[in-house]
Amino acid sequence: MDSVGTAAREESLDPENWEEMRLLGHRMVDQMMDYLEHVRDRPVWQPIPAGVTGQFHKPLPSAPEGVERSYQDFLRYVLPYPTGNIHPRFWGWVMGNGTAFSMLAEMLAAGMNLNQGGGAQAGSLVEMQVLDWCKEMLGLPGTASGILVSGGSMANLVGLAVARNAKAGYNIRSEGVRGAPRAMVLYASTETHSSVQKGVELLGLGSKAIHKIAVNSRFEIDTSLLREAIHEDRSRGLEPFCVVGNAGTVNTGATDDLTALADLCRQEGLWFHVDGAFGALAALSPELRRIVSGIECADSLAFDLHKWMSMPYEVGCTLVKDAVAHRRAFSLTPDYLEHTTRGIAGSDVWLSDYGVQLSRGFRALKVWMSIKEHGIEKFGRIIRQNVEQARYLADRISREPELELLAPVPMNIVCFRYCGAGGERGELDDLNRELLFELHEKGIAAPSYTILDGKYALRVCITNHRSIRKDYDLLADEVIRIGRELQKRGGGVL
Amino acid sequence: MDSVGTAAREESLDPENWEEMRLLGHRMVDQMMDYLEHVRDRPVWQPIPAGVTGQFHKPLPSAPEGVERSYQDFLRYVLPYPTGNIHPRFWGWVMGNGTAFSMLAEMLAAGMNLNQGGGAQAGSLVEMQVLDWCKEMLGLPGTASGILVSGGSMANLVGLAVARNAKAGYNIRSEGVRGAPRAMVLYASTETHSSVQKGVELLGLGSKAIHKIAVNSRFEIDTSLLREAIHEDRSRGLEPFCVVGNAGTVNTGATDDLTALADLCRQEGLWFHVDGAFGALAALSPELRRIVSGIECADSLAFDLHKWMSMPYEVGCTLVKDAVAHRRAFSLTPDYLEHTTRGIAGSDVWLSDYGVQLSRGFRALKVWMSIKEHGIEKFGRIIRQNVEQARYLADRISREPELELLAPVPMNIVCFRYCGAGGERGELDDLNRELLFELHEKGIAAPSYTILDGKYALRVCITNHRSIRKDYDLLADEVIRIGRELQKRGGGVL
Repeated sequence: MDSVGTAAREESLDPENWEEMRLLGHRMVDQMMDYLEHVRDRPVWQPIPAGVTGQFHKPLPSAPEGVERSYQDFLRYVLPYPTGNIHPRFWGWVMGNGTAFSMLAEMLAAGMNLNQGGGAQAGSLVEMQVLDWCKEMLGLPGTASGILVSGGSMANLVGLAVARNAKAGYNIRSEGVRGAPRAMVLYASTETHSSVQKGVELLGLGSKAIHKIAVNSRFEIDTSLLREAIHEDRSRGLEPFCVVGNAGTVNTGATDDLTALADLCRQEGLWFHVDGAFGALAALSPELRRIVSGIECADSLAFDLHKWMSMPYEVGCTLVKDAVAHRRAFSLTPDYLEHTTRGIAGSDVWLSDYGVQLSRGFRALKVWMSIKEHGIEKFGRIIRQNVEQARYLADRISREPELELLAPVPMNIVCFRYCGAGGERGELDDLNRELLFELHEKGIAAPSYTILDGKYALRVCITNHRSIRKDYDLLADEVIRIGRELQKRGGGVL
Repeated sequence: MDSVGTAAREESLDPENWEEMRLLGHRMVDQMMDYLEHVRDRPVWQPIPAGVTGQFHKPLPSAPEGVERSYQDFLRYVLPYPTGNIHPRFWGWVMGNGTAFSMLAEMLAAGMNLNQGGGAQAGSLVEMQVLDWCKEMLGLPGTASGILVSGGSMANLVGLAVARNAKAGYNIRSEGVRGAPRAMVLYASTETHSSVQKGVELLGLGSKAIHKIAVNSRFEIDTSLLREAIHEDRSRGLEPFCVVGNAGTVNTGATDDLTALADLCRQEGLWFHVDGAFGALAALSPELRRIVSGIECADSLAFDLHKWMSMPYEVGCTLVKDAVAHRRAFSLTPDYLEHTTRGIAGSDVWLSDYGVQLSRGFRALKVWMSIKEHGIEKFGRIIRQNVEQARYLADRISREPELELLAPVPMNIVCFRYCGAGGERGELDDLNRELLFELHEKGIAAPSYTILDGKYALRVCITNHRSIRKDYDLLADEVIRIGRELQKRGGGVL
């Protein structure tokens, strides 16, 4: 076969014109830097016009539209309609902002495009370094294992999978959940995040295996009730195997008494899993560390780096004290994945042995580069700043007779509502719901919402390195202004 | 509190000097474009020197090192030591290359940093558009549901979770696997990827629930044996619920008779899951489509976009024909996630209801922009080109008396070995293992390896848009050259 003729026929997905692609890259960098630098000047969020929605019901393009058209469509139809979470006045759910430098690190990772499943490549070194730093940050021993995952849901799933397998007492990977002589049950407070339930369902234990324990007035698990439940379950023939502790609950930022839970787990022979999605990171601030004291006793610890560590999505982490148990839960090596002593597969580090994924992206790079960029102390200061901002807002709310604080503020979450002249419970729920819609729709600020003791609450969750105190003053002012307006308009609009 | 004094004290993770960050971004774009443009001039892979490894055992940096130092460390210690998979002569395991434009798209996604869990933001529209395109590409109905996931392992897990829950016949999310009156079992060929086993273990069914069915000489599942196994299992009191079909097995690229499997599943009332990690994409080429015919009958279909679609890691996809069953397997809405009619949470699209993750990154953007860039026909041509290259290499191997083809080449995988003057089985295994190490260590080419009928095989898996025919000639030449050398040296080195 004529190799010249052949080469001429062959095509690739590489640019025909590298210089054009390079210049496009420069324009993208410029426009994204503008976008980030001036985020404060834009509304937090805006609704998507129907005309834009219509752009996303197109048939599969068969012919090329080219890079310029694709980018223009991005600028026109995508960029103006974000979730809002990079804005200084976004405090909804639990989200992070990201940073300019970690955005660039994501580009580098995508260009290298290495597969972090394992093997002899620098990505494994970077991820192991990041995992070592995570252990150091949170006080786990250097002998612990870990893995970077997509986020808190996967981090909890990995931790709970190791717990299930390690505590089963038989080969559950082969025999399955049906092989257990007694039904395995675990414990968590009523304030525990839904991802724990999702994980337990996925693991085949069934959500009824989660015994929900009531909380005290600070929304922390009642450890005496927990101990009673464990003993009662044992006497009923069930097999308690795990307690899930919370470091920062999603509703109010409460942290369970982790030291007490660790002690209890040790006494009862249970696995201690901590869901520290955002709260675990309080450990980075010397002033806040006591809030999560006991976290270093976790058998497994799940937390996110794309929330309070401000990395772009997606990156979370699971750390496991017993590295052997961790590996034993996930390792699986068929012939085509056999690890070798030399060549590309010649490596001791196979991160795919510690989680669900076989192919894995290079999410470690942005973490490594960002921690080097700022140093960990600065992350600790930002976290402390957010907690001080939460107290500042709570203080302002306490001083405003028209506002009502609905929960303690132990960390970075403030739940409150507008009351004004008061009203029936249902009326105030409707008023505050409408108030939240106005805050969103006018692009003023983005708290989210929850229900606390049956009351609709505006929920301000502060994991935002861009917020400054005057943003919270503006929020309080606007809630009062809109609340008064709505109450004046009365039942009509509500 | 003095707001000026306060503002002065507050800090953020934004750059102090945006202009400096912008210029750094330009340099990064330039260096990554050089890196991609000239990838052919570098070795496929190189071992990491001990001095570099030592750079990744540093204590957690407390003080900032700054962006320049972080980037220099990346250039020095990370960039030169990749997996190799972006190189034109990388054919190991199953990996993709990525592209220049999709690298830039990842930067845009990281800058917007939106949360794809749901809500009224453009990312949901982009992902729904991409999912519609995926259905169109693979022949699934528009009423099917889908979700982008981290890759094939998660894609299989999601599909199998829906299968388990839909076929349980009771509320398995609440009751767990123990609630089943009879043990649920599923079927897959002996050539099925390990991620299916990993998924089944995670789901609590236990790996013994997978009844492995033997393959024929083409490495395709024996459907008569499968039918017998189902009937026998029923008579033994087991509950067959699912058949996993392969579109492109990992060892040899074999595709099961998907039409026959679909018929069988219909007759027997079983869920039909297809693992089409790379093979599903053969559907994009009109000339290859018949290989995977029947794939459109899948109840759930798992495949990757970071393999044969050349997107950077991570992006895979699960499509599910019964959207209600899909949502029912994963949807969970506590108070703090209540969907609303207006504001940021005012959206019909909550992709977190269709998978494990709650927070989700914007992996859809690179897919949307890349498909627009090239048009889908070009992806089909690249896939066909790879299959033709596999045939070209197989043909060359058949013509070389010193080389032995070890399996049929139905798609894009070529398994072969150097035989030369022949030898005992163990000797040839050792020789070919050594030969592969040399290919890797000299940076010549990167096949991987597997065991077929007890023989060590060099395995060339072609999902590489950068390879041209002369790369395969070079591979064959080098295998012969190194093989002769090793055989001449004899037992001493082996």
